[in-house]
Amino acid sequence: MSWQRKHLLDIESLTPEEIVTVLDTARAFKAVGERAIKKVPALRGKTVINLFVEPSTRTRISFELAAQRLTADVINFSAEVSSLKKGETLKDTARNLEALNADIIIIRHSAAGAPHFLARFLRASVVNAGDGAHEHPTQALLDAFTIREKKGKIAGLKVTILGDILYSRVARSNIWALTKLGAKVTLCGPPTLVPKAFEQMGCRVTHCVEEAIADADIINLLRIQHERQRKTMFPSLGEYTSLFGLNPARLAQTRPEALIMHPGPINRGVEIDSDIADGERSVILEQVTNGLAVRMAVLFLVNGGQGPQGVAAV
Amino acid sequence: MSWQRKHLLDIESLTPEEIVTVLDTARAFKAVGERAIKKVPALRGKTVINLFVEPSTRTRISFELAAQRLTADVINFSAEVSSLKKGETLKDTARNLEALNADIIIIRHSAAGAPHFLARFLRASVVNAGDGAHEHPTQALLDAFTIREKKGKIAGLKVTILGDILYSRVARSNIWALTKLGAKVTLCGPPTLVPKAFEQMGCRVTHCVEEAIADADIINLLRIQHERQRKTMFPSLGEYTSLFGLNPARLAQTRPEALIMHPGPINRGVEIDSDIADGERSVILEQVTNGLAVRMAVLFLVNGGQGPQGVAAV
Amino acid sequence: MSWQRKHLLDIESLTPEEIVTVLDTARAFKAVGERAIKKVPALRGKTVINLFVEPSTRTRISFELAAQRLTADVINFSAEVSSLKKGETLKDTARNLEALNADIIIIRHSAAGAPHFLARFLRASVVNAGDGAHEHPTQALLDAFTIREKKGKIAGLKVTILGDILYSRVARSNIWALTKLGAKVTLCGPPTLVPKAFEQMGCRVTHCVEEAIADADIINLLRIQHERQRKTMFPSLGEYTSLFGLNPARLAQTRPEALIMHPGPINRGVEIDSDIADGERSVILEQVTNGLAVRMAVLFLVNGGQGPQGVAAV
Repeated sequence: MSWQRKHLLDIESLTPEEIVTVLDTARAFKAVGERAIKKVPALRGKTVINLFVEPSTRTRISFELAAQRLTADVINFSAEVSSLKKGETLKDTARNLEALNADIIIIRHSAAGAPHFLARFLRASVVNAGDGAHEHPTQALLDAFTIREKKGKIAGLKVTILGDILYSRVARSNIWALTKLGAKVTLCGPPTLVPKAFEQMGCRVTHCVEEAIADADIINLLRIQHERQRKTMFPSLGEYTSLFGLNPARLAQTRPEALIMHPGPINRGVEIDSDIADGERSVILEQVTNGLAVRMAVLFLVNGGQGPQGVAAV
Repeated sequence: MSWQRKHLLDIESLTPEEIVTVLDTARAFKAVGERAIKKVPALRGKTVINLFVEPSTRTRISFELAAQRLTADVINFSAEVSSLKKGETLKDTARNLEALNADIIIIRHSAAGAPHFLARFLRASVVNAGDGAHEHPTQALLDAFTIREKKGKIAGLKVTILGDILYSRVARSNIWALTKLGAKVTLCGPPTLVPKAFEQMGCRVTHCVEEAIADADIINLLRIQHERQRKTMFPSLGEYTSLFGLNPARLAQTRPEALIMHPGPINRGVEIDSDIADGERSVILEQVTNGLAVRMAVLFLVNGGQGPQGVAAV
Repeated sequence: MSWQRKHLLDIESLTPEEIVTVLDTARAFKAVGERAIKKVPALRGKTVINLFVEPSTRTRISFELAAQRLTADVINFSAEVSSLKKGETLKDTARNLEALNADIIIIRHSAAGAPHFLARFLRASVVNAGDGAHEHPTQALLDAFTIREKKGKIAGLKVTILGDILYSRVARSNIWALTKLGAKVTLCGPPTLVPKAFEQMGCRVTHCVEEAIADADIINLLRIQHERQRKTMFPSLGEYTSLFGLNPARLAQTRPEALIMHPGPINRGVEIDSDIADGERSVILEQVTNGLAVRMAVLFLVNGGQGPQGVAAV
């Protein structure tokens, strides 16, 4: 058992063994989701708080359901209706939530480092559900889980991540997880959004999509957050689609067994062609299912659960 | 046992026997709501998602509580804070929710046919909580339940529905349920909102309120959605009240045992006089109580529950 | 056992014995919050509805979690998305919620007397979670609980409440609770906000902060609701801080064992210096923890629970 951590703050600080422990534990919890009664009493009588200072329905629901299936009590705290609007600091909000005997605080925040900040003074466990452009560790873990489940391994695989890398916490967490587990990561997208500096993280950087996808085992397409893109750094949507979108012509140039991934929600016809998203090489919906299992595993482990063998015991 | 359906999409496609099965099952669940411990484990470990793309606090709460009393795990998904705002399609949203191993997806949507659309591709059960001006099947079932409970039968009763029929999913579902069960339905309201074409659904249509209510056993008053009415088709509120509102003078012309129903929320002094709403012939609050029992029955049945005798077994 | 009430509407009508019963019951529930499994089945199968017609994340969460830890089913009903916007009256909303077999309705409302109004016609229990500028009884009970726990008693203690007394339901409920339990209450703040008329409630009134805090055992600082203050009655924020804010110089003039309280959320640097809020004499976060225990006690008692000895039995 290689998990001793109280928090899950990022992928960067995890060892490969710790990542594997999460994946193994998630495998055990995935089986729970396939039972007639999708529930275990592992966190009965524990309090989990979803502190979402940046809106996110999908990730919030995935964590909420993960906590419910562990039989925890769950509270949703959305900053839009909260004291944060009255000028309370994040520190005070978190300490107030902890004073309710919270066991685990899941935080989504627009500021990079917010979860680390909370972990410095809270006794409760802190789980990062996405912090600014920094990290989104459970997304990377569910992506790694999906790849391992589909391909039987991660080491040695060629994984291409396509899109806005510079501002993507999904990309950053994926790069950490995949390189730690021995995959070869290629990053691709417009030069303004995929700077050469990422080579220092152990990735190959290219701005030619054909080159990026030709020999990939996995193609992970990031969502184009066109509602947030800075105009000075981003081509038009149409230009992006034409230069980097995954369409049938490009798909034909990939290896037949290459998997198509996407963290969702997808923009059909922008970064991905609609038929490809629904095609048999797409594992997009399996990523969603696996996300729930991974989040159950994370909540279980940060609460002191004993790895995959611990799941069998609950 | 005459329920084999995986979904509840509308009343139109149900047989009379199926409707009766829901009513009988609801009767068993109504007793649960009167116990000290208002809960049965029928859906323990099942996941129910309230997908409300059109706001509705009452119906959402009724379904949420129904699911809780069946010991299901419930997630509320409101489109206002969701990915739908980011341009995701309804289909993608629903498939993502299903990928969380959802067993039942309850959908309220402004577009007629949205539940049928989901049912075509989802493995999860779909329950229609109101789709545009099309149907609102659980409302019709709770209305039928209330009539049957109060009058001992439905066949042969004269039921008058008063108000904006043309744009009312409540009216449409009620017409289907009541005519299938043998009631005689009269529709009444302004000519622009109660066209003669409804006679093809087996109803009597009249624009004279006195005629409509004189021999009715049941008078069901629809809410005047004055915030939505199209000005070209609707008289002023005051004119509506004066021409069609149920006031003491009109009540005096009805049969003494005629029941007053309303799907709520009521507009006191508009479609209904305040004293009549609170009077002894009003069953408006019982409709709310019965709605919870009917929704428990629907969730139970679409999940494979075995009719009223199945409730005793849980 | 001195609790026979079905509702908790205010502190004004409680006897000292009833207040003590709540505090004793809360002590038993506080121990539940320190267990590994923070949950008792006292309200299993009961339905608790949070009817918040005025927004309040903290109080809502505290009640929601209290109900969850008692194993009740909880529904949140926020008026912002509710039928109240469609013009439904509060009475109709409450009766509709009750028709769902609700056992307890917790209400927060901007109108003084709203909970009393509901209690007149509802069969469900009503708990006041704050009504206008009138009362906030659970806040006063958690404040009294905290004082008693820290000081071993309340009778004879000198308690100073500092801030906007005139518009504060927290102040009003605290004055009732503390004077009933034998404390000596001093009120202090700007003359426009702390009129002499409060002397009729048995308090000392002063507008000199030094005088108010010099011999106090407890200093309770109210939040300056600067977003709501009427300009004609309130000095500028800077002026308030300089005249009434608790800073190190003023703290030095207090008794060394005086406790600092605040109902939260705090405005650091306005009514309280940041270091004092975090200092060892501050019990602000313990108030939050105690609030949960007090709310569990209130829900338990209004539902017919048998005082502190009853908690041991569940």
